[in-house]
Amino acid sequence: MGDPLGIGPEVVLRSLLDARLRKAARYVIHGWSPALLRAAQTLEIEPFWWRVPEGEAVEHASDAHDVLLVDPPEGTSPPDALLDHPPAPTKQGGALSFACVERAIADCMRPEGDPRRADALVTAPINKAAWALAGKGKYPGHTELLATRAHAKRFRMVFASDALRVALCTAHVPLMELRNVLTIGRVHETIDLAHDFCLELGVVSPRIAVCGLNPHAGEDGLLGDEDQRIITPAIHAAHQQGINAMGPFPADTIFREARLDEPSRRYDIVVAMYHDQGLIPVKLLAFDNAVNCTQGLPFVRTSPDHGTAYDIARSYTANASSTTRAIGLAVRLSKQRLVSRCTPPSWAASASRARRRS
Amino acid sequence: MGDPLGIGPEVVLRSLLDARLRKAARYVIHGWSPALLRAAQTLEIEPFWWRVPEGEAVEHASDAHDVLLVDPPEGTSPPDALLDHPPAPTKQGGALSFACVERAIADCMRPEGDPRRADALVTAPINKAAWALAGKGKYPGHTELLATRAHAKRFRMVFASDALRVALCTAHVPLMELRNVLTIGRVHETIDLAHDFCLELGVVSPRIAVCGLNPHAGEDGLLGDEDQRIITPAIHAAHQQGINAMGPFPADTIFREARLDEPSRRYDIVVAMYHDQGLIPVKLLAFDNAVNCTQGLPFVRTSPDHGTAYDIARSYTANASSTTRAIGLAVRLSKQRLVSRCTPPSWAASASRARRRS
Repeated sequence: MGDPLGIGPEVVLRSLLDARLRKAARYVIHGWSPALLRAAQTLEIEPFWWRVPEGEAVEHASDAHDVLLVDPPEGTSPPDALLDHPPAPTKQGGALSFACVERAIADCMRPEGDPRRADALVTAPINKAAWALAGKGKYPGHTELLATRAHAKRFRMVFASDALRVALCTAHVPLMELRNVLTIGRVHETIDLAHDFCLELGVVSPRIAVCGLNPHAGEDGLLGDEDQRIITPAIHAAHQQGINAMGPFPADTIFREARLDEPSRRYDIVVAMYHDQGLIPVKLLAFDNAVNCTQGLPFVRTSPDHGTAYDIARSYTANASSTTRAIGLAVRLSKQRLVSRCTPPSWAASASRARRRS
Repeated sequence: MGDPLGIGPEVVLRSLLDARLRKAARYVIHGWSPALLRAAQTLEIEPFWWRVPEGEAVEHASDAHDVLLVDPPEGTSPPDALLDHPPAPTKQGGALSFACVERAIADCMRPEGDPRRADALVTAPINKAAWALAGKGKYPGHTELLATRAHAKRFRMVFASDALRVALCTAHVPLMELRNVLTIGRVHETIDLAHDFCLELGVVSPRIAVCGLNPHAGEDGLLGDEDQRIITPAIHAAHQQGINAMGPFPADTIFREARLDEPSRRYDIVVAMYHDQGLIPVKLLAFDNAVNCTQGLPFVRTSPDHGTAYDIARSYTANASSTTRAIGLAVRLSKQRLVSRCTPPSWAASASRARRRS
């Protein structure tokens, strides 16, 4: 549900009104009834969820109720008065949204066959300052918490949109720190994860474009040596796994060749070296339909590409399209993972295994 | 004319066929007859220029002949056989294109009143390797040569297009070298030059958005200190001059707010910190209509936003739209400069002077 004072409750409700989404999967909202009821009342939505307290979810996870709302355990729920607090970071809101994410991760980490196991996690926006107020400041955001709990050693932010797919080698790193962070291994892992992401999206033979770091991709070493010293070897390593990666390309021209709305495009995804290099084109071409995915976790994780938007939280005018798309993509990616677990190895799956063995 | 074996001769001819451009100004092509004649013959264009040898240009600069072609001085012209060389960097081609630029700069630097003085320079693409073969390797491109010859201490690459205007604080600098290159003074100068550029384009009260360097513009210092330590003070200095600059903004979202095709846009130009930050959005939104300008020289200088394109030079299929736009913008900017020199100080001009005095 995200932060109770942000637009999370609103966009979750608006999205789950979508009949196609509701038919496509069953949903568990880890949230807080008062916040969702307030949103439903204001938006004149008839509550469509079945409320269960934490710990009792198993028996209700039936086809009859396709949306369950799991409330905080008895005694840990914030007072209803929190809803009258002006939209802003609060200790209680931070503690609540943190606990919701923890419980959702726990569901995703349950063993196969457990009726409470979840296949995918969609996170509504939290506020970092609120998490810090609640004493959870060591996690600057969802991703770090997810990686810790899921014991993920290699994970990356990946963006999917109507216009572009982009994988980031680095995300929230000061630009001048790239010097210490960008390594052959890190670039290679990102190419590998980008390849897997495309396969999960149904791209049979992913074509991956890799950005250079320097202007003109270093112009043969005249403008910095990282392109030759770090990125080229990472691409070669990917080739040896059978991955079709090309580059390093000058970043100012390569995104055009990966535009999904361009029939003659030459690439299915772009691997960017740093945050702005990848996100400037994504946000320019797909401001309200980009979905942020975390690739490399043992489960699917997606997220809308916006924050708590405290400034409009009380007006109930939020646009839920990014959340709707995040949920839709989570459903699609989870089904693809289920399919590849349950069917005899297809060409793609066996190729992928061959890569992993090598 | 640019490199004789590239697409320069072709795009110059194609552009100057445009009747509106021809009416708007008089033109001197510093070039080489055999290359232009070959292009004209292949494209079935009737030669429309009046050829004069170097040094005799004065008497011909009349309204009767709106396009003059100045050939190399006697004895320095390359052999015609050069035209049969496969399109590639050559010593003779480099020497020729270098000499053409030198002569064009000399015309721009002539005192006012000199009949051979030029108001603006439009450069067709040269090849750096060809310049190096010709012993001119100390200039990696037009801009550095221009700055040296024009004794310009502060100059910047600025891009104009239908979709965006962008000024670059740094251009061909290895990304990790920004640490040493990006200073308060450099950012401030860029803001100042971006402001002047907008005024010359007729924007009465330019609104300038300044990008941050780090992800999320440093997020209050959590992700690098340059945004607070360098960019914010530069913006404050610009404010004290009366310049309406705002930022530093997260670079992944700010370009949307400066899209010229968006009626509700909030900024007239974006100041980017480095090459890819500014050029990714320009090339994504305006691939074939972006014009590269050098702001800060004593004369107007524009350039199409592509290279020699040796690969298509012999097919005579080049798209001249970027060159046409570069010439059109040069005309527009020079007329604006002439107007502001010849008319009593307007509001903008006096404000600009006030700024300079302070």
